[in-house]
Amino acid sequence: MRILGIDPGLRSLGWGVIDSQGSRLSHVANGQIRSDGADLAGRLLSLYDQLTAVLRCYAPDTAAVEQTFVNKDGAGTLKLGQARGIALLVPAQAGMTVGEYAPNRVKKTVVGVGHADKAQVNHMVKLQLPGCVPAGPDAADALAVAICHAFYGGARPLLREVRA
Amino acid sequence: MRILGIDPGLRSLGWGVIDSQGSRLSHVANGQIRSDGADLAGRLLSLYDQLTAVLRCYAPDTAAVEQTFVNKDGAGTLKLGQARGIALLVPAQAGMTVGEYAPNRVKKTVVGVGHADKAQVNHMVKLQLPGCVPAGPDAADALAVAICHAFYGGARPLLREVRA
Repeated sequence: MRILGIDPGLRSLGWGVIDSQGSRLSHVANGQIRSDGADLAGRLLSLYDQLTAVLRCYAPDTAAVEQTFVNKDGAGTLKLGQARGIALLVPAQAGMTVGEYAPNRVKKTVVGVGHADKAQVNHMVKLQLPGCVPAGPDAADALAVAICHAFYGGARPLLREVRA
Repeated sequence: MRILGIDPGLRSLGWGVIDSQGSRLSHVANGQIRSDGADLAGRLLSLYDQLTAVLRCYAPDTAAVEQTFVNKDGAGTLKLGQARGIALLVPAQAGMTVGEYAPNRVKKTVVGVGHADKAQVNHMVKLQLPGCVPAGPDAADALAVAICHAFYGGARPLLREVRA
Protein backbone atom coordinates (compact mmCIF):
# COMPACT_ATOMS: atom_id res chain seq x y z
CA MET A 1 0.00 0.00 0.00
CA ARG A 2 1.35 3.39 -0.97
CA ILE A 3 0.62 6.19 1.48
CA LEU A 4 0.80 9.96 1.02
CA GLY A 5 1.23 12.04 4.17
CA ILE A 6 0.64 15.80 4.11
CA ASP A 7 1.61 18.52 6.59
CA PRO A 8 -0.42 21.48 5.33
CA GLY A 9 0.68 25.10 5.36
CA LEU A 10 0.14 28.10 3.09
CA ARG A 11 3.83 29.06 2.75
CA SER A 12 5.22 25.53 2.80
CA LEU A 13 3.26 22.30 2.46
CA GLY A 14 5.19 19.14 3.35
CA TRP A 15 4.49 15.84 1.62
CA GLY A 16 5.90 12.35 1.95
CA VAL A 17 5.18 9.08 0.15
CA ILE A 18 5.96 5.70 1.71
CA ASP A 19 5.22 2.08 0.84
CA SER A 20 3.81 -0.23 3.48
CA GLN A 21 4.22 -3.93 2.66
CA GLY A 22 3.08 -6.23 5.43
CA SER A 23 5.02 -5.03 8.44
CA ARG A 24 7.69 -3.21 6.42
CA LEU A 25 7.81 0.46 5.59
CA SER A 26 9.95 2.00 2.87
CA HIS A 27 10.54 5.52 1.70
CA VAL A 28 9.46 6.53 -1.81
CA ALA A 29 9.78 10.33 -2.00
CA ASN A 30 9.23 13.53 -0.04
CA GLY A 31 9.30 17.26 -0.56
CA GLN A 32 8.08 20.70 0.40
CA ILE A 33 5.78 22.70 -1.84
CA ARG A 34 6.19 26.48 -1.74
CA SER A 35 3.12 28.41 -2.84
CA ASP A 36 3.70 30.98 -5.54
CA GLY A 37 1.10 33.54 -6.60
CA ALA A 38 0.24 37.22 -6.73
CA ASP A 39 -2.66 36.88 -4.29
CA LEU A 40 -4.15 34.36 -1.87
CA ALA A 41 -6.27 32.65 -4.55
CA GLY A 42 -3.19 32.35 -6.78
CA ARG A 43 -1.16 30.82 -3.94
CA LEU A 44 -3.88 28.26 -3.20
CA LEU A 45 -4.02 27.39 -6.91
CA SER A 46 -0.23 26.97 -6.87
CA LEU A 47 -0.51 24.54 -3.90
CA TYR A 48 -3.33 22.68 -5.66
CA ASP A 49 -1.41 22.30 -8.93
CA GLN A 50 1.81 21.14 -7.28
CA LEU A 51 0.06 18.70 -4.93
CA THR A 52 -1.97 17.30 -7.85
CA ALA A 53 1.34 16.76 -9.70
CA VAL A 54 2.73 14.81 -6.69
CA LEU A 55 -0.36 12.55 -6.71
CA ARG A 56 -0.07 11.94 -10.45
CA CYS A 57 3.63 11.15 -10.15
CA TYR A 58 3.53 8.75 -7.17
CA ALA A 59 -0.04 7.40 -7.40
CA PRO A 60 -0.66 6.76 -3.69
CA ASP A 61 -3.50 4.42 -2.63
CA THR A 62 -4.42 6.39 0.46
CA ALA A 63 -3.63 9.73 2.09
CA ALA A 64 -3.53 11.36 5.51
CA VAL A 65 -3.33 14.98 6.63
CA GLU A 66 -2.09 16.37 9.93
CA GLN A 67 -4.93 17.77 12.06
CA THR A 68 -2.93 20.85 12.80
CA PHE A 69 -3.21 22.59 16.12
CA VAL A 70 -5.35 25.66 16.21
CA ASN A 71 -3.13 28.68 16.75
CA LYS A 72 -3.89 31.41 19.22
CA ASP A 73 -3.87 33.76 16.24
CA GLY A 74 -7.23 33.67 14.38
CA ALA A 75 -5.84 35.10 11.13
CA GLY A 76 -3.12 32.42 11.12
CA THR A 77 -5.70 29.70 11.74
CA LEU A 78 -7.78 30.96 8.80
CA LYS A 79 -4.70 30.87 6.51
CA LEU A 80 -3.83 27.38 7.68
CA GLY A 81 -7.43 26.28 7.14
CA GLN A 82 -7.31 27.51 3.55
CA ALA A 83 -4.16 25.48 2.81
CA ARG A 84 -5.66 22.52 4.67
CA GLY A 85 -8.76 22.71 2.46
CA ILE A 86 -6.54 22.18 -0.59
CA ALA A 87 -4.60 19.35 1.15
CA LEU A 88 -7.86 17.49 1.84
CA LEU A 89 -9.45 18.24 -1.54
CA VAL A 90 -6.68 16.94 -3.81
CA PRO A 91 -6.61 13.31 -2.56
CA ALA A 92 -10.44 13.28 -2.25
CA GLN A 93 -10.61 14.29 -5.93
CA ALA A 94 -8.46 11.25 -6.75
CA GLY A 95 -11.06 9.05 -5.03
CA MET A 96 -9.13 8.45 -1.80
CA THR A 97 -10.44 8.54 1.70
CA VAL A 98 -8.27 10.93 3.68
CA GLY A 99 -7.15 10.09 7.22
CA GLU A 100 -6.67 12.86 9.77
CA TYR A 101 -4.32 12.59 12.74
CA ALA A 102 -3.66 15.02 15.56
CA PRO A 103 0.01 16.09 15.86
CA ASN A 104 0.25 14.49 19.32
CA ARG A 105 -0.88 11.15 17.97
CA VAL A 106 1.58 11.35 15.07
CA LYS A 107 4.46 12.15 17.45
CA LYS A 108 3.43 9.48 19.93
CA THR A 109 3.34 6.88 17.14
CA VAL A 110 6.64 7.85 15.52
CA VAL A 111 8.70 9.10 18.46
CA GLY A 112 6.93 7.51 21.42
CA VAL A 113 6.01 10.76 23.13
CA GLY A 114 3.33 13.31 22.19
CA HIS A 115 5.45 16.38 22.88
CA ALA A 116 8.46 15.51 20.70
CA ASP A 117 10.22 18.37 18.93
CA LYS A 118 10.93 18.65 15.21
CA ALA A 119 14.50 17.32 15.52
CA GLN A 120 13.25 14.15 17.25
CA VAL A 121 10.56 13.63 14.58
CA ASN A 122 13.19 14.05 11.85
CA HIS A 123 15.52 11.58 13.58
CA MET A 124 12.86 8.91 14.07
CA VAL A 125 11.48 9.29 10.54
CA LYS A 126 14.97 8.59 9.20
CA LEU A 127 15.28 5.53 11.45
CA GLN A 128 11.86 4.18 10.39
CA LEU A 129 12.58 4.83 6.71
CA PRO A 130 16.22 3.84 6.03
CA GLY A 131 17.85 5.91 3.29
CA CYS A 132 15.29 8.69 3.60
CA VAL A 133 16.52 12.29 3.75
CA PRO A 134 13.61 14.64 4.53
CA ALA A 135 13.66 17.81 2.41
CA GLY A 136 12.94 19.87 5.53
CA PRO A 137 10.92 19.86 8.76
CA ASP A 138 7.54 20.01 6.97
CA ALA A 139 8.51 17.05 4.76
CA ALA A 140 9.65 15.13 7.88
CA ASP A 141 6.29 15.89 9.55
CA ALA A 142 4.47 14.70 6.42
CA LEU A 143 6.46 11.43 6.42
CA ALA A 144 5.58 11.01 10.11
CA VAL A 145 1.87 11.44 9.22
CA ALA A 146 2.27 8.77 6.51
CA ILE A 147 3.91 6.39 9.05
CA CYS A 148 1.06 7.07 11.49
CA HIS A 149 -1.50 6.32 8.76
CA ALA A 150 0.33 3.06 7.91
CA PHE A 151 -0.02 2.12 11.58
CA TYR A 152 -3.63 3.18 12.23
CA GLY A 153 -5.03 3.15 8.71
CA GLY A 154 -4.96 -0.61 8.26
CA ALA A 155 -1.44 -1.79 7.47
CA ARG A 156 -0.21 -1.89 11.10
CA PRO A 157 3.50 -2.28 10.42
CA LEU A 158 5.85 -3.18 13.24
CA LEU A 159 7.63 0.01 14.12
CA ARG A 160 11.38 -0.51 14.21
CA GLU A 161 12.91 -0.78 17.62
CA VAL A 162 14.98 2.29 18.06
CA ARG A 163 16.99 4.17 20.62
CA ALA A 164 15.94 7.79 20.63
CA MET B 1 -19.11 42.22 -16.92
CA ARG B 2 -20.44 39.17 -15.12
CA ILE B 3 -19.52 38.91 -11.45
CA LEU B 4 -19.64 35.92 -9.10
CA GLY B 5 -19.87 36.69 -5.38
CA ILE B 6 -19.20 33.97 -2.80
CA ASP B 7 -19.99 33.80 0.92
CA PRO B 8 -17.95 30.77 2.03
CA GLY B 9 -18.99 28.27 4.67
CA LEU B 10 -18.50 24.53 5.16
CA ARG B 11 -22.18 23.71 5.79
CA SER B 12 -23.64 26.25 3.40
CA LEU B 13 -21.77 28.26 0.77
CA GLY B 14 -23.73 31.16 -0.73
CA TRP B 15 -23.17 32.27 -4.31
CA GLY B 16 -24.65 35.02 -6.48
CA VAL B 17 -24.09 36.04 -10.10
CA ILE B 18 -24.84 39.56 -11.35
CA ASP B 19 -24.23 41.48 -14.57
CA SER B 20 -22.73 44.95 -14.41
CA GLN B 21 -23.25 46.99 -17.59
CA GLY B 22 -21.99 50.54 -17.33
CA SER B 23 -23.75 51.89 -14.26
CA ARG B 24 -26.48 49.24 -14.24
CA LEU B 25 -26.59 46.05 -12.21
CA SER B 26 -28.85 43.11 -12.93
CA HIS B 27 -29.41 39.79 -11.23
CA VAL B 28 -28.51 36.56 -13.06
CA ALA B 29 -28.77 33.75 -10.50
CA ASN B 30 -28.04 32.85 -6.88
CA GLY B 31 -28.07 29.84 -4.61
CA GLN B 32 -26.73 28.06 -1.55
CA ILE B 33 -24.52 24.99 -1.85
CA ARG B 34 -24.84 22.41 0.91
CA SER B 35 -21.81 20.17 1.35
CA ASP B 36 -22.48 16.47 1.29
CA GLY B 37 -19.89 13.86 2.23
CA ALA B 38 -18.94 11.13 4.68
CA ASP B 39 -15.93 13.04 6.02
CA LEU B 40 -14.35 16.50 5.85
CA ALA B 41 -12.41 15.76 2.65
CA GLY B 42 -15.62 14.48 1.03
CA ARG B 43 -17.53 17.61 2.05
CA LEU B 44 -14.82 19.87 0.62
CA LEU B 45 -14.90 17.87 -2.62
CA SER B 46 -18.70 18.28 -2.70
CA LEU B 47 -18.32 22.09 -2.33
CA TYR B 48 -15.63 22.09 -5.04
CA ASP B 49 -17.73 20.10 -7.51
CA GLN B 50 -20.88 22.17 -6.99
CA LEU B 51 -19.06 25.51 -7.16
CA THR B 52 -17.22 24.38 -10.31
CA ALA B 53 -20.64 23.55 -11.84
CA VAL B 54 -21.89 27.09 -11.00
CA LEU B 55 -18.86 28.60 -12.78
CA ARG B 56 -19.37 26.40 -15.84
CA CYS B 57 -23.07 27.25 -15.98
CA TYR B 58 -22.85 31.05 -15.58
CA ALA B 59 -19.32 31.75 -16.90
CA PRO B 60 -18.51 34.82 -14.76
CA ASP B 61 -15.67 37.16 -15.82
CA THR B 62 -14.54 37.92 -12.29
CA ALA B 63 -15.17 36.74 -8.74
CA ALA B 64 -15.05 38.00 -5.17
CA VAL B 65 -15.12 36.24 -1.81
CA GLU B 66 -16.13 37.60 1.56
CA GLN B 67 -13.14 38.05 3.92
CA THR B 68 -15.04 36.40 6.70
CA PHE B 69 -14.57 37.49 10.27
CA VAL B 70 -12.37 35.34 12.39
CA ASN B 71 -14.50 33.67 15.05
CA LYS B 72 -13.51 33.48 18.68
CA ASP B 73 -13.66 29.71 18.23
CA GLY B 74 -10.42 28.40 16.67
CA ALA B 75 -11.94 25.11 15.45
CA GLY B 76 -14.72 27.07 13.70
CA THR B 77 -12.16 29.37 12.08
CA LEU B 78 -10.21 26.34 10.79
CA LYS B 79 -13.42 24.86 9.28
CA LEU B 80 -14.30 28.18 7.68
CA GLY B 81 -10.75 28.50 6.33
CA GLN B 82 -11.04 25.10 4.67
CA ALA B 83 -14.26 26.08 2.88
CA ARG B 84 -12.74 29.45 2.01
CA GLY B 85 -9.75 27.69 0.43
CA ILE B 86 -12.16 25.97 -1.99
CA ALA B 87 -14.06 29.23 -2.65
CA LEU B 88 -10.81 30.96 -3.66
CA LEU B 89 -9.40 28.00 -5.59
CA VAL B 90 -12.31 27.38 -7.98
CA PRO B 91 -12.38 30.84 -9.66
CA ALA B 92 -8.54 30.98 -9.64
CA GLN B 93 -8.55 27.67 -11.56
CA ALA B 94 -10.81 29.29 -14.16
CA GLY B 95 -8.14 31.99 -14.63
CA MET B 96 -9.93 34.74 -12.68
CA THR B 97 -8.41 37.15 -10.22
CA VAL B 98 -10.43 36.90 -7.03
CA GLY B 99 -11.38 40.00 -5.05
CA GLU B 100 -11.65 39.86 -1.27
CA TYR B 101 -13.81 42.21 0.78
CA ALA B 102 -14.26 42.49 4.51
CA PRO B 103 -17.89 42.03 5.67
CA ASN B 104 -17.97 45.61 7.00
CA ARG B 105 -16.99 46.99 3.63
CA VAL B 106 -19.61 44.86 1.86
CA LYS B 107 -22.34 46.04 4.25
CA LYS B 108 -21.22 49.66 4.06
CA THR B 109 -21.34 49.53 0.25
CA VAL B 110 -24.69 47.79 -0.04
CA VAL B 111 -26.58 49.01 3.04
CA GLY B 112 -24.67 52.20 3.91
CA VAL B 113 -23.57 51.08 7.37
CA GLY B 114 -20.91 48.54 8.36
CA HIS B 115 -22.93 46.91 11.13
CA ALA B 116 -26.09 46.06 9.13
CA ASP B 117 -27.88 42.82 10.01
CA LYS B 118 -28.80 40.02 7.60
CA ALA B 119 -32.37 41.29 7.07
CA GLN B 120 -31.07 44.71 5.99
CA VAL B 121 -28.56 43.13 3.59
CA ASN B 122 -31.31 40.98 2.09
CA HIS B 123 -33.60 44.00 1.70
CA MET B 124 -30.98 46.18 0.01
CA VAL B 125 -29.77 43.38 -2.29
CA LYS B 126 -33.36 43.01 -3.54
CA LEU B 127 -33.60 46.78 -4.08
CA GLN B 128 -30.27 46.89 -5.99
CA LEU B 129 -31.17 43.85 -8.07
CA PRO B 130 -34.87 44.17 -9.05
CA GLY B 131 -36.62 40.83 -9.44
CA CYS B 132 -33.99 39.00 -7.39
CA VAL B 133 -35.14 36.59 -4.69
CA PRO B 134 -32.15 35.40 -2.63
CA ALA B 135 -32.23 31.65 -1.89
CA GLY B 136 -31.33 32.39 1.73
CA PRO B 137 -29.11 34.64 3.90
CA ASP B 138 -25.84 33.17 2.56
CA ALA B 139 -26.98 33.74 -1.04
CA ALA B 140 -28.00 37.33 -0.14
CA ASP B 141 -24.53 37.88 1.39
CA ALA B 142 -22.90 36.47 -1.75
CA LEU B 143 -24.96 38.84 -3.96
CA ALA B 144 -23.88 41.72 -1.69
CA VAL B 145 -20.22 40.68 -2.21
CA ALA B 146 -20.83 40.68 -5.99
CA ILE B 147 -22.38 44.20 -5.79
CA CYS B 148 -19.37 45.36 -3.74
CA HIS B 149 -16.98 43.91 -6.34
CA ALA B 150 -18.93 45.66 -9.13
CA PHE B 151 -18.41 48.90 -7.23
CA TYR B 152 -14.73 48.54 -6.22
CA GLY B 153 -13.53 46.03 -8.78
CA GLY B 154 -13.71 48.35 -11.78
CA ALA B 155 -17.28 48.68 -12.99
CA ARG B 156 -18.32 51.38 -10.46
CA PRO B 157 -22.06 51.28 -11.02
CA LEU B 158 -24.28 53.95 -9.53
CA LEU B 159 -25.94 52.32 -6.59
CA ARG B 160 -29.68 52.86 -6.76
CA GLU B 161 -31.11 55.52 -4.52
CA VAL B 162 -33.08 53.67 -1.94
CA ARG B 163 -35.01 54.23 1.23
CA ALA B 164 -33.91 51.64 3.76
